[in-house]
Amino acid sequence: MSAAFRDLLETFPNPYPQRDYTIETVCPEFTSLCPKTGQPDFGTLTITYVPDEYCFELKSLKLYLQQYRNHGAFYEAVTNTILDDLVAATQPRSMSLIGAFTPRGGIRTNVIVEYRKPA
Amino acid sequence: MSAAFRDLLETFPNPYPQRDYTIETVCPEFTSLCPKTGQPDFGTLTITYVPDEYCFELKSLKLYLQQYRNHGAFYEAVTNTILDDLVAATQPRSMSLIGAFTPRGGIRTNVIVEYRKPA
Amino acid sequence: MSAAFRDLLETFPNPYPQRDYTIETVCPEFTSLCPKTGQPDFGTLTITYVPDEYCFELKSLKLYLQQYRNHGAFYEAVTNTILDDLVAATQPRSMSLIGAFTPRGGIRTNVIVEYRKPA
Amino acid sequence: MSAAFRDLLETFPNPYPQRDYTIETVCPEFTSLCPKTGQPDFGTLTITYVPDEYCFELKSLKLYLQQYRNHGAFYEAVTNTILDDLVAATQPRSMSLIGAFTPRGGIRTNVIVEYRKPA
Amino acid sequence: MSAAFRDLLETFPNPYPQRDYTIETVCPEFTSLCPKTGQPDFGTLTITYVPDEYCFELKSLKLYLQQYRNHGAFYEAVTNTILDDLVAATQPRSMSLIGAFTPRGGIRTNVIVEYRKPA
Amino acid sequence: MSAAFRDLLETFPNPYPQRDYTIETVCPEFTSLCPKTGQPDFGTLTITYVPDEYCFELKSLKLYLQQYRNHGAFYEAVTNTILDDLVAATQPRSMSLIGAFTPRGGIRTNVIVEYRKPA
Amino acid sequence: MSAAFRDLLETFPNPYPQRDYTIETVCPEFTSLCPKTGQPDFGTLTITYVPDEYCFELKSLKLYLQQYRNHGAFYEAVTNTILDDLVAATQPRSMSLIGAFTPRGGIRTNVIVEYRKPA
Amino acid sequence: MSAAFRDLLETFPNPYPQRDYTIETVCPEFTSLCPKTGQPDFGTLTITYVPDEYCFELKSLKLYLQQYRNHGAFYEAVTNTILDDLVAATQPRSMSLIGAFTPRGGIRTNVIVEYRKPA
Amino acid sequence: MSAAFRDLLETFPNPYPQRDYTIETVCPEFTSLCPKTGQPDFGTLTITYVPDEYCFELKSLKLYLQQYRNHGAFYEAVTNTILDDLVAATQPRSMSLIGAFTPRGGIRTNVIVEYRKPA
Amino acid sequence: MSAAFRDLLETFPNPYPQRDYTIETVCPEFTSLCPKTGQPDFGTLTITYVPDEYCFELKSLKLYLQQYRNHGAFYEAVTNTILDDLVAATQPRSMSLIGAFTPRGGIRTNVIVEYRKPA
Repeated sequence: MSAAFRDLLETFPNPYPQRDYTIETVCPEFTSLCPKTGQPDFGTLTITYVPDEYCFELKSLKLYLQQYRNHGAFYEAVTNTILDDLVAATQPRSMSLIGAFTPRGGIRTNVIVEYRKPA
Repeated sequence: MSAAFRDLLETFPNPYPQRDYTIETVCPEFTSLCPKTGQPDFGTLTITYVPDEYCFELKSLKLYLQQYRNHGAFYEAVTNTILDDLVAATQPRSMSLIGAFTPRGGIRTNVIVEYRKPA
Repeated sequence: MSAAFRDLLETFPNPYPQRDYTIETVCPEFTSLCPKTGQPDFGTLTITYVPDEYCFELKSLKLYLQQYRNHGAFYEAVTNTILDDLVAATQPRSMSLIGAFTPRGGIRTNVIVEYRKPA
Repeated sequence: MSAAFRDLLETFPNPYPQRDYTIETVCPEFTSLCPKTGQPDFGTLTITYVPDEYCFELKSLKLYLQQYRNHGAFYEAVTNTILDDLVAATQPRSMSLIGAFTPRGGIRTNVIVEYRKPA
Repeated sequence: MSAAFRDLLETFPNPYPQRDYTIETVCPEFTSLCPKTGQPDFGTLTITYVPDEYCFELKSLKLYLQQYRNHGAFYEAVTNTILDDLVAATQPRSMSLIGAFTPRGGIRTNVIVEYRKPA
Repeated sequence: MSAAFRDLLETFPNPYPQRDYTIETVCPEFTSLCPKTGQPDFGTLTITYVPDEYCFELKSLKLYLQQYRNHGAFYEAVTNTILDDLVAATQPRSMSLIGAFTPRGGIRTNVIVEYRKPA
Repeated sequence: MSAAFRDLLETFPNPYPQRDYTIETVCPEFTSLCPKTGQPDFGTLTITYVPDEYCFELKSLKLYLQQYRNHGAFYEAVTNTILDDLVAATQPRSMSLIGAFTPRGGIRTNVIVEYRKPA
Repeated sequence: MSAAFRDLLETFPNPYPQRDYTIETVCPEFTSLCPKTGQPDFGTLTITYVPDEYCFELKSLKLYLQQYRNHGAFYEAVTNTILDDLVAATQPRSMSLIGAFTPRGGIRTNVIVEYRKPA
Repeated sequence: MSAAFRDLLETFPNPYPQRDYTIETVCPEFTSLCPKTGQPDFGTLTITYVPDEYCFELKSLKLYLQQYRNHGAFYEAVTNTILDDLVAATQPRSMSLIGAFTPRGGIRTNVIVEYRKPA
Repeated sequence: MSAAFRDLLETFPNPYPQRDYTIETVCPEFTSLCPKTGQPDFGTLTITYVPDEYCFELKSLKLYLQQYRNHGAFYEAVTNTILDDLVAATQPRSMSLIGAFTPRGGIRTNVIVEYRKPA
């Protein structure tokens, strides 16, 4: 299922592969569905990475994230899956993803996941 | 006493046990009673943990915390007890809990406790 | 039921009845129960009034509001009832009450009620 | 089309019809689709009304608003339509609706509509 | 000169001409050139109007405002000119425009202009 | 008692009596004692007035307010008394005083008093 | 003395005298000397006016305000004087000036003055 | 002199001595007198400590701090003295104290002191 | 292309080369064009460096950055290029550059690049 | 030149030389002149130090800083000079100074300098 979503991600060649530098992308309009209740969830995703050969293209990132709009996904699973997909697409030197979801029942949850390329 | 409360905590299997990642849960609606005066106390609890095999289920966390509503508890003791209960239920790789209580007599108190799984 | 709560409200003589002036009291630690679900609700009550012969005593206000801690009450009803009780106790020249409740299901609600002494 | 959505709105009898008072409901998780591009739009709706015989029920409001999730709607039209639906359901003494939408192309738009019951 | 810019503004029929309502559009990325020094100026334009038969189309507004990017214009003149152009294009019931410009030499300036359709 | 405090207030001639204008003085370091418990109270006083023939001198205002440091005074009474003293000293065209006191028992109180010179 | 300062103010013809509109200029870097102690005072001046035939030129305003840098001036007097000078230079339809000065001895003062052209 | 104040501090047994954890207590209502001028000083004290066998009791802390109300004390000295007194009373594993004082003459000062139990 | 822009950068001798210290320059008015769409982009550039023999001159920095106003440049490329140009001009001990761009399509991007002089 | 200014700095013996602790002093009212244009510059100086035998006296610091009011000084030079003067006067264990200057031409600059006593 994620495989299909993942195919939407497009990349372009990193214009400065000779330098370690950081790209931070903030997406405050992420929404998916709670698999238990079917109710919509909302959150802000913050992707921070050191690109290697490829950077992800922003428009394709947007389309990729929109696939979750009518898709059931738990907070912990969806955050890990999106990181996996972005890592698969860009093979970065390192990447982190913070999913900060809006409150439900007076409680709000952030999920923070990290990837580091094996040495 | 806490034993009974603790039984309310439910868990689900960590969907990504192969990766160290962090879940942060913020509960701004915690309330208990001061054991000396019987007056209500209010605070925000922030739980941050790296799950191992289990994650706590949010609805059961809410029910668990509501047990303190009519229960007498000092700041220092209740923060340590809740950490113990959450550690017992989820056996995390590490966990911290910050209890930030509202002012009394012009003075406010935060209690910060941490657990790290023995190597 | 409210009658019993209302009896807890104590007053003291307005020290400046010769002057129209305003007292604003903010109570950020109001909590009651949802009559449908039994779940706790939380809110901030702001009482603004022009006293006539009596002012309410703050400690008794606190005890009065604490009666709602384990009491089922809808937002609209409880805000109107508390205004009625405070008006009955102090017979003010005018009074308003704003109940600002915390979000539920991603939606938050404020209820604003006003009383003006008949000319 | 809106007729079908409107049927989801449920009401309950105003507990204090003898008093003019104000209910303000803030819904920060509104989302619909742009009819031109099919891209999701996001906004915060703030409904403020003086109820007459009926108040809208919050859970049904939430379900009603969720109908727009996969529905194409321009800012100006959707804000006016939702006001019409809420007025039809509750017949309030007055009602206003503010739709505050997130930026597109560096520009953000708010739409403010009001209804006042004919004397 | 402004005549040429003005031609870029496109409109669409007001979907609710039967109701007086307000559209507020905030454009934080306005930039023009100082006619004296040739240095760039920056500001946020806030347009607030009650449409009559026409609303301005947002994409065409953006293109219209971009014409000022390499155009010399004093704060007072450009704010009045843009209001005139928007009034000419949409013939609104009323419209106001606030230009809030960033500091120069430690001093910042806002210009507030209003139009009201003659009765 | 207040008479003695009041004597500390010094004035200087209003430099522009021909014009109605407003002076706003904010004193965030007011402290007095609760007459019931002997505990210190803290607050911010905001004095706003249209001077007639006299303005109060700021250093003398400070000394005057410091007299309350070890003086028992209820919120409502002290706010009215200070207004009376400032009115007596300066005979202004109008004056308001806001006392915004820090929370006690989770509740905070503001007292707003106004004076207007009889026509 | 002020006469000499006033001569520094330059004006330019109002580009839209046919319309009543408002110019607001905020100068956060005003400084003068306390005539009693010789110590520097600091403040933010906010000038808001409806121009008639003339607008003041910003660079000359800056030079004019810099004359106060080593000049002794009480808050009330300097705020009234600057308004008088700006009114004399521009003959506006109306003008207000707010001087918001930084705290001294824990107390801060704002002075608000207004001018309205006689009908 | 401090010896007498220090005697007011009461402690209770640390309920979790087996765990290193942190208690942070914020006291925004500290006031003392300047020994040179006799003028009141105001500040916020933040005490952060890892308790060993004892915690300080909050009511006694409040009474202890109130002893400084009419006591002359320089910022640097009073911050060090209060840390010494709290260390003497509770013998913590570590403790820090931040005194953040309000501005005087446009300048504000923070004093940060730390204690670490010898190994 | 950048070579031509780079020639605009002027430097002056570091007045304290004997000490490692940091200069941080914040430029909130950077604007360039998107090479794909031709639409303007906006961002804040923050340059932080430890100068060696030379510091860049602020006015020349401003002129240099203005060259990008009508120049097509991707976020990642332009941030790296500007760092290269500033490093070439000043040969600093170290330098970082953060480009924080405004949202497009609901997504915003920061690019963080660093240079460290080889030992 | 600085030598003469430096003589104004007075010190008092550190009351706790046996403990390493930190004093942080924030001066938001620093002003000097630009040597090139003669125009006033404004900034906030933050001095943070671990005193050894001496602390600087606050009133003398204020007088010292006021010497720069009509003195021409570049940002980088003045920040380094003031650090040198404060180090010469107090011989601290360590000291840092942050000069945060207000924007000029839309660009603002901070200079951060540090001193550490040789071991």
